Amino acid sequence: MSSYLIAPSILSADFARLGEDVEKVLAAGADVVHFDVMDNHYVPNLTFGPMFCQALRDYGITAPIDVHLMIEPVDQIVPAFAKAGANIITFHPEASKHVDRTLQLIKDHGCQAGLVLNPATPLTTLEHVLDKLDVIMLMSVNPGFGGQTFIPHTIEKLRQVRALIEQSGRKIRLEIDGGVNVNNIKEIAEAGADMFVAGSAIFSQPDYQKVINEMREQLSQVTHSAVRK
Amino acid sequence: MSSYLIAPSILSADFARLGEDVEKVLAAGADVVHFDVMDNHYVPNLTFGPMFCQALRDYGITAPIDVHLMIEPVDQIVPAFAKAGANIITFHPEASKHVDRTLQLIKDHGCQAGLVLNPATPLTTLEHVLDKLDVIMLMSVNPGFGGQTFIPHTIEKLRQVRALIEQSGRKIRLEIDGGVNVNNIKEIAEAGADMFVAGSAIFSQPDYQKVINEMREQLSQVTHSAVRK
Amino acid sequence: MSSYLIAPSILSADFARLGEDVEKVLAAGADVVHFDVMDNHYVPNLTFGPMFCQALRDYGITAPIDVHLMIEPVDQIVPAFAKAGANIITFHPEASKHVDRTLQLIKDHGCQAGLVLNPATPLTTLEHVLDKLDVIMLMSVNPGFGGQTFIPHTIEKLRQVRALIEQSGRKIRLEIDGGVNVNNIKEIAEAGADMFVAGSAIFSQPDYQKVINEMREQLSQVTHSAVRK
Amino acid sequence: MSSYLIAPSILSADFARLGEDVEKVLAAGADVVHFDVMDNHYVPNLTFGPMFCQALRDYGITAPIDVHLMIEPVDQIVPAFAKAGANIITFHPEASKHVDRTLQLIKDHGCQAGLVLNPATPLTTLEHVLDKLDVIMLMSVNPGFGGQTFIPHTIEKLRQVRALIEQSGRKIRLEIDGGVNVNNIKEIAEAGADMFVAGSAIFSQPDYQKVINEMREQLSQVTHSAVRK
Amino acid sequence: MSSYLIAPSILSADFARLGEDVEKVLAAGADVVHFDVMDNHYVPNLTFGPMFCQALRDYGITAPIDVHLMIEPVDQIVPAFAKAGANIITFHPEASKHVDRTLQLIKDHGCQAGLVLNPATPLTTLEHVLDKLDVIMLMSVNPGFGGQTFIPHTIEKLRQVRALIEQSGRKIRLEIDGGVNVNNIKEIAEAGADMFVAGSAIFSQPDYQKVINEMREQLSQVTHSAVRK
Amino acid sequence: MSSYLIAPSILSADFARLGEDVEKVLAAGADVVHFDVMDNHYVPNLTFGPMFCQALRDYGITAPIDVHLMIEPVDQIVPAFAKAGANIITFHPEASKHVDRTLQLIKDHGCQAGLVLNPATPLTTLEHVLDKLDVIMLMSVNPGFGGQTFIPHTIEKLRQVRALIEQSGRKIRLEIDGGVNVNNIKEIAEAGADMFVAGSAIFSQPDYQKVINEMREQLSQVTHSAVRK
Repeated sequence: MSSYLIAPSILSADFARLGEDVEKVLAAGADVVHFDVMDNHYVPNLTFGPMFCQALRDYGITAPIDVHLMIEPVDQIVPAFAKAGANIITFHPEASKHVDRTLQLIKDHGCQAGLVLNPATPLTTLEHVLDKLDVIMLMSVNPGFGGQTFIPHTIEKLRQVRALIEQSGRKIRLEIDGGVNVNNIKEIAEAGADMFVAGSAIFSQPDYQKVINEMREQLSQVTHSAVRK
Repeated sequence: MSSYLIAPSILSADFARLGEDVEKVLAAGADVVHFDVMDNHYVPNLTFGPMFCQALRDYGITAPIDVHLMIEPVDQIVPAFAKAGANIITFHPEASKHVDRTLQLIKDHGCQAGLVLNPATPLTTLEHVLDKLDVIMLMSVNPGFGGQTFIPHTIEKLRQVRALIEQSGRKIRLEIDGGVNVNNIKEIAEAGADMFVAGSAIFSQPDYQKVINEMREQLSQVTHSAVRK
Repeated sequence: MSSYLIAPSILSADFARLGEDVEKVLAAGADVVHFDVMDNHYVPNLTFGPMFCQALRDYGITAPIDVHLMIEPVDQIVPAFAKAGANIITFHPEASKHVDRTLQLIKDHGCQAGLVLNPATPLTTLEHVLDKLDVIMLMSVNPGFGGQTFIPHTIEKLRQVRALIEQSGRKIRLEIDGGVNVNNIKEIAEAGADMFVAGSAIFSQPDYQKVINEMREQLSQVTHSAVRK
Repeated sequence: MSSYLIAPSILSADFARLGEDVEKVLAAGADVVHFDVMDNHYVPNLTFGPMFCQALRDYGITAPIDVHLMIEPVDQIVPAFAKAGANIITFHPEASKHVDRTLQLIKDHGCQAGLVLNPATPLTTLEHVLDKLDVIMLMSVNPGFGGQTFIPHTIEKLRQVRALIEQSGRKIRLEIDGGVNVNNIKEIAEAGADMFVAGSAIFSQPDYQKVINEMREQLSQVTHSAVRK
Repeated sequence: MSSYLIAPSILSADFARLGEDVEKVLAAGADVVHFDVMDNHYVPNLTFGPMFCQALRDYGITAPIDVHLMIEPVDQIVPAFAKAGANIITFHPEASKHVDRTLQLIKDHGCQAGLVLNPATPLTTLEHVLDKLDVIMLMSVNPGFGGQTFIPHTIEKLRQVRALIEQSGRKIRLEIDGGVNVNNIKEIAEAGADMFVAGSAIFSQPDYQKVINEMREQLSQVTHSAVRK
Repeated sequence: MSSYLIAPSILSADFARLGEDVEKVLAAGADVVHFDVMDNHYVPNLTFGPMFCQALRDYGITAPIDVHLMIEPVDQIVPAFAKAGANIITFHPEASKHVDRTLQLIKDHGCQAGLVLNPATPLTTLEHVLDKLDVIMLMSVNPGFGGQTFIPHTIEKLRQVRALIEQSGRKIRLEIDGGVNVNNIKEIAEAGADMFVAGSAIFSQPDYQKVINEMREQLSQVTHSAVRK
């Protein structure tokens, strides 16, 4: 994997030709396949479940699959996603009564584990589980709704989380989800993010490779970042 | 539509090539595309939501889409499915606090409305809404789980529902879902069903047309049925 | 009380002058003050709670107050309504896990107890508690929403409930709520109802007495009714 | 087992000396150990869970253990009770979204399965699962509360359930729970019950054997019963 | 509006003459009408909903209406309150799964938005949404119960929130609710509050003007406050 | 009471001989009887409720009973535990909507009150209620599951809580629960804990006195601790 990871969200892919569309976006240079799993309870929308992991694996997709659970409760579905081929599973701390246990459960099933913070969620939810986190994801829009733009305060929040990660001395990915595009990806990276979810910014374009190349070009210009060298 | 309707459940289709697989099963003679929508709350599994209707419509599928909601609550997702191209929407009476209102909501959005009865659910749930029902579906397995076989008592229950429909003088489809296959479809039709969901019975076979033809052949042999002439 | 009871629902009264408006409708000949209590959970609307009973009692209203609980759960609020001056408390069987216990609780607090049936709710919910019921209310619209008209099937359902009451040999009021007006009150009474909730049909008119008189005139013409003499 | 089964509820036993007290009541002639499992959700009280089955088995108790689940949801605790030594597991149909599936789950774990009907619960909940029931239990008080007396209507309801059982041609125990004592056990048996839960009626007495003998004496006088010969 | 706002809670008003009582308290010098909306779920009491806003507007009340939602979930009722005439809508962060989204929703409906902190709720819930807050309200009693006195620790908490507001450089009202009266209002203002809810302290007095004047007199003596000049 | 308190959890005791087993462990030198109350909702296990307090009191146990509620909601069961003989009642802040109110409720019933923090729960939940806390308990495993070992990060968290307590100047017990044994008790005490729950570490041993003596021996070697002298 490259130092920066680009993770297209299949929420914006063509679900009638999912295998083909995912294959295409990976060929265009994407690093990770991002899943936005919604259950009509934690967020007011219903998207897709574990069998879509399996379908992609059966189709021949071998790239890492990064599953963002916008569901509650979390624990009962973890084994199904792990079995179906997920590599990373993240969830919202508000959606599990026992956050430490859920993180451990994900790891016990052989996946990397992460927490996702809503725009208003405080960083205190991370403090006592830093040693169990492989990924921290910040939502830069409110999950479950389309048509939103990047919330500006997220830049400051990214810096704070980056500092927390650096202090911990641990290797934790800092992922960002919501309103990321070619125009703001550089600023976002400078604030500390190193993994970028993008949905319509990529899939709504005719040429996926062009967008991803432009994103990489922007990322290559990050000269000073919040990330400790 | 023919007198008997065969409704393959896409739950068993190939989700990496959904458009193609649905096109194929329709070309093989299926009448209706059946959606098994699960939310990880009403049943312990999460499948897919409204955007899959839309994806099939965008792909060019014009066959009727029959959406079976195994979710709760029901009301908030109805408009999304209607807008995405659903033609029939059915739900479980236990999953809505206001069954009559939900039926009306579905009709107000231009869809046909139906109730689905779990194996243990009594027929009294149908009695006071018969004039709002376009479809009654009986579950012949418990929803949300794979690998089950047709519950024998359903035959008797089908006869009772068929009698209820005939008494009402209304034109209500009697749909059956769970463990239907070439070997039992004739007996099921004789008990009163006229719409048949089949998942793996069709999609697990190499030749969809062969299975559907065999089902139709069985149905053509129904000489005496519970359906009033 | 007269043989037929007219129960204006204060949901349509003027809440800036509630005491005065209720006084006026009682002076106009209404028998009972009807409360539509909604909690934004059992129905998607929030109206008012026990303190409005108390406010009317403090204002000097002595007419019976008939509280229709469109809330869940039910038990915890019963003592508050009883203490605030309620005379009749009815609830939906779907909203209490222990219907017999809730009925007993209402009676233990000195009130008359009743069940309310939604349009789709079967009569089997009444069968084993007939000896604890003072009132059965049928909803002839779906509770919690405005602008609905009387559901025609309710006429047949009223006849069935009336028959059930007569069989029981017990004195149980049969109340009807939803879309009742001068034009249909006679037919409703002939089907077996003897207590009539009316909201906007009364309060939206400039002259409450005129409406109530017209309703009574209609009721006086009921010559054959489902009620056993 | 004798034809009539007496099942003392350990809810009234001495929990500081449970093994000894259960041993004593069995030595006094009881047939079955009855567990009233409450979770502070389905009923407003919390009693005890699976480890008490295990503790009694480890103590050497070999009598059948009859577990009445006053909890919701039901499915997740069934395996634990089965593993801990339960023989019969019953639950309330209102407490499981998928009643047929829960019954099957209990049987799959090697236990007998049953449904418990609250005083107000209609018999229609039994109709479509009679072929999966080993036990039907009627509550003759409301579950979860102490100090209640036998609800008289239960006698009529017992007769109806007994008729349903006889019609089915199946061998289903008809258990009764709530306010059963030496004075009414005969009448209850005549109405069709053949398994009797008794808590304080037995455990509050100094001499368990005397009470049980009196109960059996009463049962021996049942000359005409609702049970088909 | 004056620099300090006095907001009488209509929870203590006369609900039989609400228009008149609100008119009177405004004539006596109150600035804002405060609504305590309870749904019997987030707090164990049920008070009143949006139609009371409408009733006051129809009566001719033009003062700002400040709606404190002690309900959960929050989102679905926001449009109704906005449409009925609310100017400020505040809610508890624990009562919304998506706090940032709910704040935005309130603003999108043309109202000022705020968060309410229970006595134990940490200030971290405010940190990442300060730029969306028009009001922060601290509860100085536990919401939903009568007869409580001002919790002393609130003084310290007010100072902390005031500091947070000053740091943000934004103009955010700091409202206080619970046990405020003539005797403690000065100390509360010195700790940083600038908007004061008072219920029985005002409405239980025969002369509203006298109480409000005394409060203003106390407030005029605030010489050093936590508020940055 | 001694300066350090050892609190055996009866979760690991013999429930067929509970009185005797508790008597034995107290005779062996334990200070407090610890209750792990689980409701199958807050944690996925069901253990025991208030009547076990009562049974031990009736048996003659006079030692303090320390009730750890792993249930939600909390408020309704507090009076029952207080009445049954509990001395300390602790609960999880996530399990009560109104933490300050629940703490006050416990104190109003004559018990000491405390909060329990799950491994991931931030300390901010303690900040505004320190003056109402008699006990703070840290979970060093995830509650509701067996077979876990002490989470290492808890040592650091203990130090932080100890500092918080010392700053407050209040006398608050710092209790630790999960994986405590003879080998780690000294380190745990040095980090600031002064009350130690131990379940199987004690009850699984043939000689309770030997274990408890060894624990006390370890505790006597604590020379430098986080506790302020």
